Amino acid sequence: MPASADLMTIQRGARVRRSPFFDATLHAGCWGYTVYNHMLLPIGYDDDLNEEYRSLVNDVTVWDVSVERQVEITGPDAFAFTNLLTPRDLTQCKVGQGKYVVITSEDGGIVNDPVLLRLGENHFWIAVADSDVLLWAKGVAYGSGMKVEINEPDVSPLQIQGPKSKPLMQRLFGDEVVELQYYHFVETALDDIPVVVTRTGWSGEVGFEIYLRDGSRGDELWQRVMQAGKPYRIAATGPSDIRRIEAGILNYGIDMTLAHNPFEVGLGWLVQLEQDADFIGKEALRRIKERGVTRKLVGVEIEGEPLDLNMTRWPVHAGAARVGEITSAVYSPRLEKNIGYAMVPVEHAEPGTRLTAAAPVGEVPITVVPKPFVDPKKDLPKS
Amino acid sequence: MPASADLMTIQRGARVRRSPFFDATLHAGCWGYTVYNHMLLPIGYDDDLNEEYRSLVNDVTVWDVSVERQVEITGPDAFAFTNLLTPRDLTQCKVGQGKYVVITSEDGGIVNDPVLLRLGENHFWIAVADSDVLLWAKGVAYGSGMKVEINEPDVSPLQIQGPKSKPLMQRLFGDEVVELQYYHFVETALDDIPVVVTRTGWSGEVGFEIYLRDGSRGDELWQRVMQAGKPYRIAATGPSDIRRIEAGILNYGIDMTLAHNPFEVGLGWLVQLEQDADFIGKEALRRIKERGVTRKLVGVEIEGEPLDLNMTRWPVHAGAARVGEITSAVYSPRLEKNIGYAMVPVEHAEPGTRLTAAAPVGEVPITVVPKPFVDPKKDLPKS
Repeated sequence: MPASADLMTIQRGARVRRSPFFDATLHAGCWGYTVYNHMLLPIGYDDDLNEEYRSLVNDVTVWDVSVERQVEITGPDAFAFTNLLTPRDLTQCKVGQGKYVVITSEDGGIVNDPVLLRLGENHFWIAVADSDVLLWAKGVAYGSGMKVEINEPDVSPLQIQGPKSKPLMQRLFGDEVVELQYYHFVETALDDIPVVVTRTGWSGEVGFEIYLRDGSRGDELWQRVMQAGKPYRIAATGPSDIRRIEAGILNYGIDMTLAHNPFEVGLGWLVQLEQDADFIGKEALRRIKERGVTRKLVGVEIEGEPLDLNMTRWPVHAGAARVGEITSAVYSPRLEKNIGYAMVPVEHAEPGTRLTAAAPVGEVPITVVPKPFVDPKKDLPKS
Repeated sequence: MPASADLMTIQRGARVRRSPFFDATLHAGCWGYTVYNHMLLPIGYDDDLNEEYRSLVNDVTVWDVSVERQVEITGPDAFAFTNLLTPRDLTQCKVGQGKYVVITSEDGGIVNDPVLLRLGENHFWIAVADSDVLLWAKGVAYGSGMKVEINEPDVSPLQIQGPKSKPLMQRLFGDEVVELQYYHFVETALDDIPVVVTRTGWSGEVGFEIYLRDGSRGDELWQRVMQAGKPYRIAATGPSDIRRIEAGILNYGIDMTLAHNPFEVGLGWLVQLEQDADFIGKEALRRIKERGVTRKLVGVEIEGEPLDLNMTRWPVHAGAARVGEITSAVYSPRLEKNIGYAMVPVEHAEPGTRLTAAAPVGEVPITVVPKPFVDPKKDLPKS
């Protein structure tokens, strides 16, 4: 990996957006950026991604995830409209509370899997994965007759993840934030920088997100967090695929797409068919639930030498027949094995099933195993 | 620039899609990829982008633009639905014909600026710029009561651009293709590789696009084109920003976005308010046309040393006041000056207006000038 990112090789012209933390990430030594929601997403800073993982599971890490753009829904029908967008029953989401949700299309396909925050009776933010939910929501609103405003506000999240995130957040924001229940949030300020702080994250570790509400103050916020984090050995890192795969967390665009429904990828618990309200995809999802799915995203262990994170889907074979594909795969240093996900027909989805995968190193044996790989309730060796 | 692309620095996991021509572009020495419609887009092959430009204006170039994903609209209401999506009057688009269109939102903002192809009475492809028109269209269809199917088919365009594109296409496909009128197309095959060939492009040069209809045959098609192109000194290149700016062509996501309407960016000619049919944004665009716009995208000449393509928006100043921004800027070797676009208030939009821009090298004088910079009817020195 190069010492620092060569932006010439990842953008062409000014089309791809930069986050309020971009300069800070570059100065912190980020060596690569991918593009997510039309914006640069820092990939990594340490030459060894296992080092970033160790910071995450032992100390505390800060990730620029401004790419989680918000879709803001306001107006007199904002509650009804937002409830139409997701199969989760939002009558169960109080103001000040968030929910992990799926947004589904009419045939039950997954449009996105955002964190939703309810800031007011009729005021929602949807922190979206990599698809234009802004356009989806505006399209649905057209001709719906509902009175809503749908916009992308100036809001940019930073994730603060790892066991030392609690003392760090205590130091920055005081007790109110540290006592937040999972998926709850507060609107607050750091000095006078306006933020929303949530008890959420993409790591399976204790963690928070600081949603910056003024893009002109990204550098200030970054410096403030890094300064306060020094005693906790804070490290700027990319999101850790190792840790999120250990935790059974999915990545939209690869582990699930518009071509998959929530029941196929283990997110059936987000589909609340018993609610009175209608939502997009309700009929299709009811049918799918009744009939059962024909394929499933399963956990797999992959034999062989430690793997780097996969860069393509790998075909999965049952004997000579191609039956599915590996969507994500990586080596877990503390489990000391290669773990990942595969989308396979239900007849090959039972734990213990033996298959093979066409990895770049050749055909390797894989075994279907339960997810998550790391049980948050068990005390695991730190790496 | 590195000798070849370091994919580790531009993708993380298998989320970002690869085109059917990806392996071919890597073997051809592509040194960088950006991400566009969730897919890798080759940026360049020659160390000097001016060399790629010279191939384009003197010979013939091939660009992998599989990132122009198609949104396919079929079903009994496909014509009415597609006509609802765009302000252009599609009764004027025959089967076998294409149109450059804008897709607009309810407030007249630009959702996308695709090339639309009409393959049948009720069969359309929309070759989209970088935004999820698939989600926009599915959102609009929801609750519209119209009978349409909306999907992303297995279709991947290659652009063949430059003065030698005609003899090359003659050699590959024969007379039928070479005689195509601008924005017309034929469904044909190369050997038995199924393709659609269009007389379109993003260069201002004579050009064609070959839409591959079978993603498993990308390498074959690429090799076939490169082989036939040898006598014409064919070169694999990225899309040329120099040439498209000379031609007055806009880039969605930077020169225009959802925050801009067609009248602001010189695309008012795509808005046909007099048609009987309704389309999304009709009322808003009628009002905007009546009242006039408050800002405009103008051509600018930029003083100083030859510029590399801008990587960020540059603030534009009138005296001390910030009044707008440069969206695209680059040095034109044959015009021997820096050219670009600026979004400025109408009071600063008259040709001859003198302003300044905050370029990375410092504040530089700029002058508003008419677009396009290169008149296709004039004989210009080749570079």
